[in-house]
Amino acid sequence: MTAEMEAFLHELCDAAARETMPRFRVRIDVENKDETGFDPVTAADKAAESVIRAMITSRYPDHGIIGEEEEPLNPDAEYCWHIDPVDGTRAFISGLPNWGTLIGLSRNGIAIAGVMHQPFTGERYFTSLGQSWLEHGGKREKVSTRKAGDLANQTIMTTSPFLFAEDYLPRYQALEARCKMARYGYDCYAYAMLAAGHVGLVVESGLKSYDIAALIPVIEQAGGVVTTWNGENAIKGGNILAAANLQIHAQAMAILAG
Amino acid sequence: MTAEMEAFLHELCDAAARETMPRFRVRIDVENKDETGFDPVTAADKAAESVIRAMITSRYPDHGIIGEEEEPLNPDAEYCWHIDPVDGTRAFISGLPNWGTLIGLSRNGIAIAGVMHQPFTGERYFTSLGQSWLEHGGKREKVSTRKAGDLANQTIMTTSPFLFAEDYLPRYQALEARCKMARYGYDCYAYAMLAAGHVGLVVESGLKSYDIAALIPVIEQAGGVVTTWNGENAIKGGNILAAANLQIHAQAMAILAG
Repeated sequence: MTAEMEAFLHELCDAAARETMPRFRVRIDVENKDETGFDPVTAADKAAESVIRAMITSRYPDHGIIGEEEEPLNPDAEYCWHIDPVDGTRAFISGLPNWGTLIGLSRNGIAIAGVMHQPFTGERYFTSLGQSWLEHGGKREKVSTRKAGDLANQTIMTTSPFLFAEDYLPRYQALEARCKMARYGYDCYAYAMLAAGHVGLVVESGLKSYDIAALIPVIEQAGGVVTTWNGENAIKGGNILAAANLQIHAQAMAILAG
Repeated sequence: MTAEMEAFLHELCDAAARETMPRFRVRIDVENKDETGFDPVTAADKAAESVIRAMITSRYPDHGIIGEEEEPLNPDAEYCWHIDPVDGTRAFISGLPNWGTLIGLSRNGIAIAGVMHQPFTGERYFTSLGQSWLEHGGKREKVSTRKAGDLANQTIMTTSPFLFAEDYLPRYQALEARCKMARYGYDCYAYAMLAAGHVGLVVESGLKSYDIAALIPVIEQAGGVVTTWNGENAIKGGNILAAANLQIHAQAMAILAG
């Protein structure tokens, strides 16, 4: 991991924002009909991923790329980029600012650097120098996860309780019942709140690699723990448990692992 | 409704933001414990409401005030202010920017003007000159609700499906099943998205007067319709149906009224 690669993560985010932002909050019902065949979020996703892929293959031709919109490119390379230009497509098309651009870098299957960029609010959560940071309003500050370890004092987040498969839902519900409060509906934004110490857990099922790879280092380098529900490396996606610290992680995994 | 009152709405929002923003995203677990007795959202709510009430009683001593934190003051006055400094307290304490300051003005029980201010994103949705507007990033633009009327193309929002009382939940679920998509978790921010044409409906139950009074004119003057589930004036709260237009409103009410 070089400083050049770290800087490149931000160049990729900036390029993605030039494709996503002009398509955010674009009205598609202007002619009194909903079905115009124009799908702004898919257009944003495809255009941004295309630009990002071109930048990566130009700068690092031997690196791999895993993204949402196109087939994996050389995914077993030493270095691999994981990209999701619009994580939270339903938020995006509902005008809500709680989507994000995810760009991560792994080395030999281990997530080592990542960025979550929300260009409407101007928040950028990212790793640098072994730490996690938030850049917002021209200021850069270190972020860290919550230190307290009692599940009963934590807020748990998930995108929707209705996204869990039938056999996973009771486990999620058992965990939620042990927490202080639940918040639904935030996709990648939830993981940023975890990294910054505002919530204690994020739990989801059925994630893809590009939904989580960029977020793993942001959470880990802020002091948190991200694994599958069985405690394995989360970089391939699946059922994800992200926790503010090892104590919360252990308590939650005891319930989720079933 | 005078231009002075309209301007005063914004002065109140600015004053509220000076109380809420320094308490937003404040960490309460810094000493490795959660229970310090410090509750930033309650402090923000109380401090802001106190400042707003003092400003109103000083400027308009014969007006009424209905707010969350203190007893109603002269609520049967010709003009009445409806205030909720932090609508979306659970979002606030989770670091999420989807809370808002609500300030509304009614005359003889009819909501005539309102503001929803989100000071972190810098968005202000408000009424002026019989129109609804969004001010953001130094720009002011008119907002309007969606014109299309087919329920099957609409996004429906509610704060949580688990907030409906037992006898109301099946009606909400029947309506949600007719819509394209549901989004949970946004309190007043959902109504702003409705006013700006990004979603088609917001449906909730058990709201207080100060949760909805400020939002009624913002939605109505953008082209939308807000009533109770039975089609009555929504200003006293209760079960709320806010829709982008009369057609969607009628379709939804046929399901909700039961």
